[in-house]
Amino acid sequence: MLTHLDCTKCEKRYEPGRVYTFCACGAPLFPRYDLARAALEMRPGHLALREPTMWRYREVLPLAEGEERVSLGEGLTPLLPAPRLGARLGLPRLAVKEEGGNPTGSFKARGLSMAVSMAKALGATDVCLPSAGNAGSALAAYAAAAGLRAHVFLPRDVARLFVMETEAYGAHVETVDGLITDAGRACAAQAKEHGWYECATLKEPYRVEGKKTMGYEIAEQMGWRAPDVVVAPAAVGETFIAAHRGFAEMERLGFIPKRPLMAAAQAAPANAITKAWRDETAIAPLKIGYTVAEGLAAGNPGRKGDWVLRILRETGGVAGQAEDEEILEAQKMLARTEGIWAGPTGSAGIAVLMRLLADKQVDPTSTICVIVSETGLKTEAPPPSREAIAFDEASLRRLVLEKLGAGS
Amino acid sequence: MLTHLDCTKCEKRYEPGRVYTFCACGAPLFPRYDLARAALEMRPGHLALREPTMWRYREVLPLAEGEERVSLGEGLTPLLPAPRLGARLGLPRLAVKEEGGNPTGSFKARGLSMAVSMAKALGATDVCLPSAGNAGSALAAYAAAAGLRAHVFLPRDVARLFVMETEAYGAHVETVDGLITDAGRACAAQAKEHGWYECATLKEPYRVEGKKTMGYEIAEQMGWRAPDVVVAPAAVGETFIAAHRGFAEMERLGFIPKRPLMAAAQAAPANAITKAWRDETAIAPLKIGYTVAEGLAAGNPGRKGDWVLRILRETGGVAGQAEDEEILEAQKMLARTEGIWAGPTGSAGIAVLMRLLADKQVDPTSTICVIVSETGLKTEAPPPSREAIAFDEASLRRLVLEKLGAGS
Repeated sequence: MLTHLDCTKCEKRYEPGRVYTFCACGAPLFPRYDLARAALEMRPGHLALREPTMWRYREVLPLAEGEERVSLGEGLTPLLPAPRLGARLGLPRLAVKEEGGNPTGSFKARGLSMAVSMAKALGATDVCLPSAGNAGSALAAYAAAAGLRAHVFLPRDVARLFVMETEAYGAHVETVDGLITDAGRACAAQAKEHGWYECATLKEPYRVEGKKTMGYEIAEQMGWRAPDVVVAPAAVGETFIAAHRGFAEMERLGFIPKRPLMAAAQAAPANAITKAWRDETAIAPLKIGYTVAEGLAAGNPGRKGDWVLRILRETGGVAGQAEDEEILEAQKMLARTEGIWAGPTGSAGIAVLMRLLADKQVDPTSTICVIVSETGLKTEAPPPSREAIAFDEASLRRLVLEKLGAGS
Repeated sequence: MLTHLDCTKCEKRYEPGRVYTFCACGAPLFPRYDLARAALEMRPGHLALREPTMWRYREVLPLAEGEERVSLGEGLTPLLPAPRLGARLGLPRLAVKEEGGNPTGSFKARGLSMAVSMAKALGATDVCLPSAGNAGSALAAYAAAAGLRAHVFLPRDVARLFVMETEAYGAHVETVDGLITDAGRACAAQAKEHGWYECATLKEPYRVEGKKTMGYEIAEQMGWRAPDVVVAPAAVGETFIAAHRGFAEMERLGFIPKRPLMAAAQAAPANAITKAWRDETAIAPLKIGYTVAEGLAAGNPGRKGDWVLRILRETGGVAGQAEDEEILEAQKMLARTEGIWAGPTGSAGIAVLMRLLADKQVDPTSTICVIVSETGLKTEAPPPSREAIAFDEASLRRLVLEKLGAGS
């Protein structure tokens, strides 16, 4: 039921069925739907009988009827009550949206299932993006399922498992010195040179549509009510924007009485959005420090950051940050109290929620849903076992003795 | 709707609500249900509206109404058509039951969600089992969610990530020299000493009930038809037995016209069941060699193996084995053609299916469902990066020069 796309800034209108990146004015484009018809088709009774994936919301997704869905079963992830963690934190109504069970172990699967479906429908043969890890392996998986070639640009110091995972799907991986922004420049340059379809965040208009289904699911799983507060991770802010877009759309559809208060969760060493929100200034790009939450390591959210800021200010949302120690402590608590082992990036929302509670920016009696964005299974494995070290020492001794022989 | 338990061999009857291990005669116990009532409650129209987890089949699960479900959203995993892999293998109707999206990344979540729910309902404070990896982390996760202490016994050479994952949930991990059978002996001894609730395969009667839901889901996802062939991994055979139990139960419920042909998939170095089936002999325990499919590394399936053999012979099933190279090739093919990256154990079914096709033991035109039991994300990370190696060489050179100095 896609009617057209329009610019999120100058509102210029674009017809469906062609490849788009940004608007002529430089802002991202959003697909628009016939929401009146969608509201009729998507009545709760109808939805309840649909497939347990994000595609149950097809009327508000851009893929035309008859086009091939590139799907690995993404979405309709569990919304888990967290009573034991809640008791620890003094939160009687805490729930977790557990995204680690998605294909490739993170919520990135939603956006890339959507983006790759559209890329294939639009005739692309090669897709590419820069990534801190999760988006790259998700693109690789969906490209493999679609029979497209994938090109993934990762920062050189990314956890090795991400490279192994992405290459397992047959994708072309390029590691780039520096941060994801540097990987982004390398990706854009090669995309231009080779004519690849770019799936970089908000550079194509469809990834965010897959991601917004998180909002639809949270509302449906709560009986078509939004929680009072939704805590979403925010690096450059795509997830935050997507979740907010989902809730705003549902409000227009008449599916929920009111939107939740949105909280943006950042890592302290990469807190451009939080800083600007607190200081009531515009976003100033910053040189970021190291953070265990690799998925949040973005120093310059750029236009997306301004957008997150606008949403925060217009809707009375909040932003918060957490230090690595707090994030690792939250990760441990979540695993030990609720049996959910997320990566540091996936656990950051819990850590930030604790900060927001301490700062009295969230009402502890409210219904709170934290988006836990990734599994813990991509955590770098611990150092080699004793045996392996023993072997190194042996070969070292051997070489030393040879050299001594040669030397004498 | 649990009515009682009975022995799978001597048929002795046991009342619900107490802790049981094996029957007095030494054979495992199975729960029994009021299937007539279950059939009424579980009509397709009713089921279609239920939650997207294995608990949608509650009438054929042993947990009493009102008891707490220890659930992390396990089950109703995707049944994915595999057209591109099917084209490669000449199989027009190939599908994959993708179990890697379960909590803790494997199908072990089903059995342990069930077993831990029952353990908690029966008043246990400590749960334990021996594991090759996946069952251990699943037990740890569900025990954490239930507020129980978990004790997991792993072979010492298990992939390090399994230890890290299991400990992340706060479980007590003990690594044991030797194979899972050795870990089993250590676990049983300590369970006896400390009075822990044992969740070892078929040693308690409920894990298999969680696992059988795989069969229910495959049938429901195919519109209440069983595929012609189901390929299930078989180490000691619990999964095979559980899947078969699910289909047999559905046949009695009148949910499916006929059961599928069951194929047991083994790794060549641990092929006790396949060997006995081929040679039409009883199972002879064997000293197994190394296999990349760690979850299949079982040399003595014992009573469970005899049971698998009985099922194979009574239902005209087949057994097959694959070499490590074939398993690794199948893993690669599955990832690159369908975007599903499974571990070697999870990919073994595909490799064995290729062997069975070559041996003309499976009709290529039939509808085939392969159970892919685990995610690839637990694969051991590749050797350290170039920088790390460079560092070793530098320190080695330094030491050599020192020694040379000392030598001259």
